[in-house]
Amino acid sequence: MDEFALIRRHFAALTGAPREVVLGVGDDCALLQPPPGEQLAVTSDTLIAGRHFPDQTAPADIGWKALAVNLSDLAAMGARPLAFTLALTLPQADDAWLAAFAQGLRACAEPSGAALIGGDTTRGPLSITITAIGALPPGGALLRAGAGIGDLVCVTGTLGDAALALQQWQAGRVPADDAEHWLRARLDRPTPRHAAGLALRGLARAAIDVSDGLLGDLGHICSASGAGAELDLSALPMSEAFRRRAPAAQRAGLQLTGGDDYELCVCVPPARLDDARRACGPLPLTPVGRIVAEAGVRLRDAHGAIVEVSSHAYRHF
Amino acid sequence: MDEFALIRRHFAALTGAPREVVLGVGDDCALLQPPPGEQLAVTSDTLIAGRHFPDQTAPADIGWKALAVNLSDLAAMGARPLAFTLALTLPQADDAWLAAFAQGLRACAEPSGAALIGGDTTRGPLSITITAIGALPPGGALLRAGAGIGDLVCVTGTLGDAALALQQWQAGRVPADDAEHWLRARLDRPTPRHAAGLALRGLARAAIDVSDGLLGDLGHICSASGAGAELDLSALPMSEAFRRRAPAAQRAGLQLTGGDDYELCVCVPPARLDDARRACGPLPLTPVGRIVAEAGVRLRDAHGAIVEVSSHAYRHF
Repeated sequence: MDEFALIRRHFAALTGAPREVVLGVGDDCALLQPPPGEQLAVTSDTLIAGRHFPDQTAPADIGWKALAVNLSDLAAMGARPLAFTLALTLPQADDAWLAAFAQGLRACAEPSGAALIGGDTTRGPLSITITAIGALPPGGALLRAGAGIGDLVCVTGTLGDAALALQQWQAGRVPADDAEHWLRARLDRPTPRHAAGLALRGLARAAIDVSDGLLGDLGHICSASGAGAELDLSALPMSEAFRRRAPAAQRAGLQLTGGDDYELCVCVPPARLDDARRACGPLPLTPVGRIVAEAGVRLRDAHGAIVEVSSHAYRHF
Repeated sequence: MDEFALIRRHFAALTGAPREVVLGVGDDCALLQPPPGEQLAVTSDTLIAGRHFPDQTAPADIGWKALAVNLSDLAAMGARPLAFTLALTLPQADDAWLAAFAQGLRACAEPSGAALIGGDTTRGPLSITITAIGALPPGGALLRAGAGIGDLVCVTGTLGDAALALQQWQAGRVPADDAEHWLRARLDRPTPRHAAGLALRGLARAAIDVSDGLLGDLGHICSASGAGAELDLSALPMSEAFRRRAPAAQRAGLQLTGGDDYELCVCVPPARLDDARRACGPLPLTPVGRIVAEAGVRLRDAHGAIVEVSSHAYRHF
């Protein structure tokens, strides 16, 4: 089957589109009519088999995650998802694989409102690059650079679940109960926090999504804002499944340097914390530290003493 | 060196940007302020080493071509280049390779006006996905679907050069004179025809870029327009280098089914041909056939007789 027939068959149902999409898949380019006066947020992320997800990952989960990591970047900017392109490189044209991949992609796309508008299919080692486009009012973007001294560092949801699931997977453990299945889903099907990202516009002064681990990602906010941060180890939010399954000695490492959580890390002035929490609705927003003048990210234990960490955030090289 | 340092070092100089770029590389997303009232054209293309270019291709040429093939899609839509994202997957972080790649990318980007606004760097087999964004007035896009019966099928520049160069390369031939170097440059550094694409808005009724070979690409126009086409074999424009070096028996095949020319194929009403040619300025625009009612693409020889072709356009699967 040729490239064009493949794409038509499996991705046609994905192209139902918001009104901003003037022309979707099938021409040399897609056409968007941007919402009048708004700015567009644009992000590209690549997932490589064996590097960003285990080789055995189900194709539906790969489809979900490839889009979710991009929607997470839009969320961290406070942008409303509009559309995305899909560059899919596959070892062979496998009909069942594509059907499952497209199903997972669709399941992630539909609640977000983002439409598939184009892309490219090529043959090669499995890799997926998605470019996502969102909209937001001028001046409304949540940047990394806006953190101010005294801001509370807050995170949505819980941290460490995906890293624990990956560790269990790599140890050959098959999910055996609800807790382990829930943890695995946190790795395979992260929920992009776009509703929270939109709701935090005007309340948070800086934001990033936690993709490489809180330490590293908060470090980007600090560098961009010309500041530092202190984190309270005992404040890091933990899921019930994580609390039950993560060995106590590994918890801090998993929560601080484990990637793949795709929660938001935002900096909020203390006076806005209640509003920010209300804005996130049912999603918990937990203060885990504060922005300080001294550069770097430091950790404090339950007694307020500075502790050292030796591990580092995930790096691609 | 980590991903972030790599990107900063080699691609910083690429981020000088048109006024539409509010925020470039370095945050979760880039921010664009679309030109008021205009539409955006969006396209993604992936190049895989060994598949879309020979493994021995110079990194500067890879950088050029990865962007050029996307700018060519913008040209085929009649869109003015604004910005692009770069998703770069590399076997290792090689400083010299990246410097050369960035230099080639910059050489292609600068005359186009497109700014690098973001992307992702990952480790894996060499592959490059670029997503390019252009602007155009609403209703101004050159679609594949607009061809009308009686329109002249025209192509810019010459056809077959890149396919001949690839054939010579694959035969182990090293360019030995000006003609062979010129042919190789047609393969390695195709010139996206964006000036022609913009100038043909309102004159051409349909357009596509010739990436997979004229037969296949014109076939897409025909399918989208619910029509067919006849091509005059003797009218296909040939460069002097191609005429001198391509074996006579292979010329038609190279010109019709060889990919990588990145010329534009446009459909123009006969009454607009002179205007369309003037609009292309120094770039030749050559009528090579016409749109007809009967579906499919047929070839006529110099005597007007229908001839058969056995080869097919390049397919990725």
